[in-house]
Amino acid sequence: MSIIMSLNSGSSSCKAQLYQMPEEKVLCSALFERIGQSVGNITFELENAKHTDEVLLPNHKVAIEILLKLLVEHGVISSLDDISGIGHRIVHGGEKYKHSALFTAEVEADIEALIDLAPLHNPANLLGYRVMKELLPNVTQVAVFDTAFHQSMEPVSFMYPIPIEYYQKYRIRKYGFHGTSHLYVTSRARSILGEDQSRRLICCHLGNGGSLSAVKDGECVNTSMGFTPLAGIMMGTRSGDIDPSIMAYLAEKEELSAVKITDICNKKSGILGISQVSSDMRDIEEAINQGNKQAELARAMYVQRVGMTIGSYIAQLGGCDAILFTAGIGENSSIVRKLIIDSITDAFGVTLDDKKNSLRKQEIEISSVDSKIKVFVIPTNEELVIAQDTYQLYSVN
Amino acid sequence: MSIIMSLNSGSSSCKAQLYQMPEEKVLCSALFERIGQSVGNITFELENAKHTDEVLLPNHKVAIEILLKLLVEHGVISSLDDISGIGHRIVHGGEKYKHSALFTAEVEADIEALIDLAPLHNPANLLGYRVMKELLPNVTQVAVFDTAFHQSMEPVSFMYPIPIEYYQKYRIRKYGFHGTSHLYVTSRARSILGEDQSRRLICCHLGNGGSLSAVKDGECVNTSMGFTPLAGIMMGTRSGDIDPSIMAYLAEKEELSAVKITDICNKKSGILGISQVSSDMRDIEEAINQGNKQAELARAMYVQRVGMTIGSYIAQLGGCDAILFTAGIGENSSIVRKLIIDSITDAFGVTLDDKKNSLRKQEIEISSVDSKIKVFVIPTNEELVIAQDTYQLYSVN
Repeated sequence: MSIIMSLNSGSSSCKAQLYQMPEEKVLCSALFERIGQSVGNITFELENAKHTDEVLLPNHKVAIEILLKLLVEHGVISSLDDISGIGHRIVHGGEKYKHSALFTAEVEADIEALIDLAPLHNPANLLGYRVMKELLPNVTQVAVFDTAFHQSMEPVSFMYPIPIEYYQKYRIRKYGFHGTSHLYVTSRARSILGEDQSRRLICCHLGNGGSLSAVKDGECVNTSMGFTPLAGIMMGTRSGDIDPSIMAYLAEKEELSAVKITDICNKKSGILGISQVSSDMRDIEEAINQGNKQAELARAMYVQRVGMTIGSYIAQLGGCDAILFTAGIGENSSIVRKLIIDSITDAFGVTLDDKKNSLRKQEIEISSVDSKIKVFVIPTNEELVIAQDTYQLYSVN
Repeated sequence: MSIIMSLNSGSSSCKAQLYQMPEEKVLCSALFERIGQSVGNITFELENAKHTDEVLLPNHKVAIEILLKLLVEHGVISSLDDISGIGHRIVHGGEKYKHSALFTAEVEADIEALIDLAPLHNPANLLGYRVMKELLPNVTQVAVFDTAFHQSMEPVSFMYPIPIEYYQKYRIRKYGFHGTSHLYVTSRARSILGEDQSRRLICCHLGNGGSLSAVKDGECVNTSMGFTPLAGIMMGTRSGDIDPSIMAYLAEKEELSAVKITDICNKKSGILGISQVSSDMRDIEEAINQGNKQAELARAMYVQRVGMTIGSYIAQLGGCDAILFTAGIGENSSIVRKLIIDSITDAFGVTLDDKKNSLRKQEIEISSVDSKIKVFVIPTNEELVIAQDTYQLYSVN
């Protein structure tokens, strides 16, 4: 038995889960929010108890020190020596990392060098590693990359049709994100359906961010996010793909820099930008029920873009065995799932069982018996993948 | 019998065809190239003769004066009074023009106001009109818009997921281009197949520029070009859709303005940018035959993007009755057609008759008898549409 921690150190938050491996048993979960702000929040959840607290969290180190103290105090572990491995979510692993990796000086330097491609995430991810390295110097630490699963894409899918020198000089290409989630969800589908019946999968990770991936025989062949997480489908606050010439046009009209316009496309666009109501699909559904036309347009645009992306992946995959929904919207919004599948029923003969589709947050097949493509809801579990990969690398280390 | 001229006045060229209507008989074609440069070229083609000449063409007015003189000199018309109407290709008609329109002061002012959205084309198009207005003040003049056919799109398809105020303030939305070609080609398909058998059409206008349109019951429901002709599929020198955040990233890295990056995406990207060989598919095919790997990647990327766009339109249309190829590559490259259809055969059961597909520049069905979707090559004829619309508006005027 080994104790493995999965850690997601973000810019102002830190999320941890402690697993007993190989049983994959969750021993506790902790969430530290508002790090660096005037009041921080701690949520600490054991099997049968949940503690919340407000406390000053000036930086990640303080948060992680509190986390380690709580683990011992609540008897989750008897001492810090019980922890065998820590797996860190790292957003950007570039082209090099196709799998999770034991942390070494080289891995650390590579992640540092990729900050340019993930300026918000990689520094915070590295911070988590560095604090842990300092506090628990003898524990195996593993980097689990959000980009890794997508690195099986071929050049025909990952290259952009811009001068090839920009790939050579700056590595501008499609990387894809949410890889750990796409890996988890498609692996689950392959184990449920059997590999022969799940050769061509389309995974729809629909959360506040969102991406689709096309997965053939367990390998990602395409994904909708690109060089950055701005690309692809419309999202909560992100535009996804738009005519690229809009960037310079808007910059000139609004007298803003292109960087600022990119920021608007990241933070004020998508469902929020069209609806002017909210980036949250639950608020949108409520607004639609109250007759809000912009909210209705926002949802219709969202649904159309997901449906059309599914169509484009069916083309690339040469057909589709199953469509998988996951993440916030994918797991919870039966209406959005229904609208997406309805939008492609005529084209692809895929239909839902409305009763099964009305269930929430369960791993369940929701297609009707005569649907030509199976449809599943599979709640994602990135933390588990991080723990699994960390346990595996710890075991062979 | 009426004589109608179709005129395409571009930035450095001017193309004219004279039609006898309603017979749709081409009386002559003229092409003026390199206007404003040190040496200009004239090509003047009659039914059985072709004249070429080098002559100084300092501006459009001189070119058009030569054109009118040649028409009389060669006896195509006995006097300028024989011309009943002139139809002008106008690239951008904005949201207002869903059909061709008789030129009035209002139409002229609207086209002028849209220069901002088509800075290269609308001024040159207007120049052609103004010169003709001056030289032939009594002739009916008609504006035929490249955007008109696409104005049947619904907001769900033409809106971008950016803050809605940018649509309200600047009319940033998807307009679509090549509309006259998409209209011609899909109308031909509807007349060949009958309206019942052609309810869902996907038209692939693949030239140096390129766009696809999804047409339901004769109305455009979506198209791949967007706010500008940069959007959509990869093209000869244009990137098409890429992660929009690349614009600001590249601008910063290259220390160039976003406008300059947009220019690079328009002029140095696409097939040229990847292959570093040429923007012309004929050169690419030759380079591939000589073993050039970048040329092969460029063509593979091009084919994949067209195939995936077809898939996305099959999703939106709820199926597809026929796929139509037109324009330079679409009419001439049997290899590219074959690669595109092969890439979607498994997904959609569409297959070609290789023998029929080997023919060039003919209006022909090229799908195999058991193909689930019919495939046609339909050489485009924008000039004819311009003449038809002009003749019609002249007749009712």
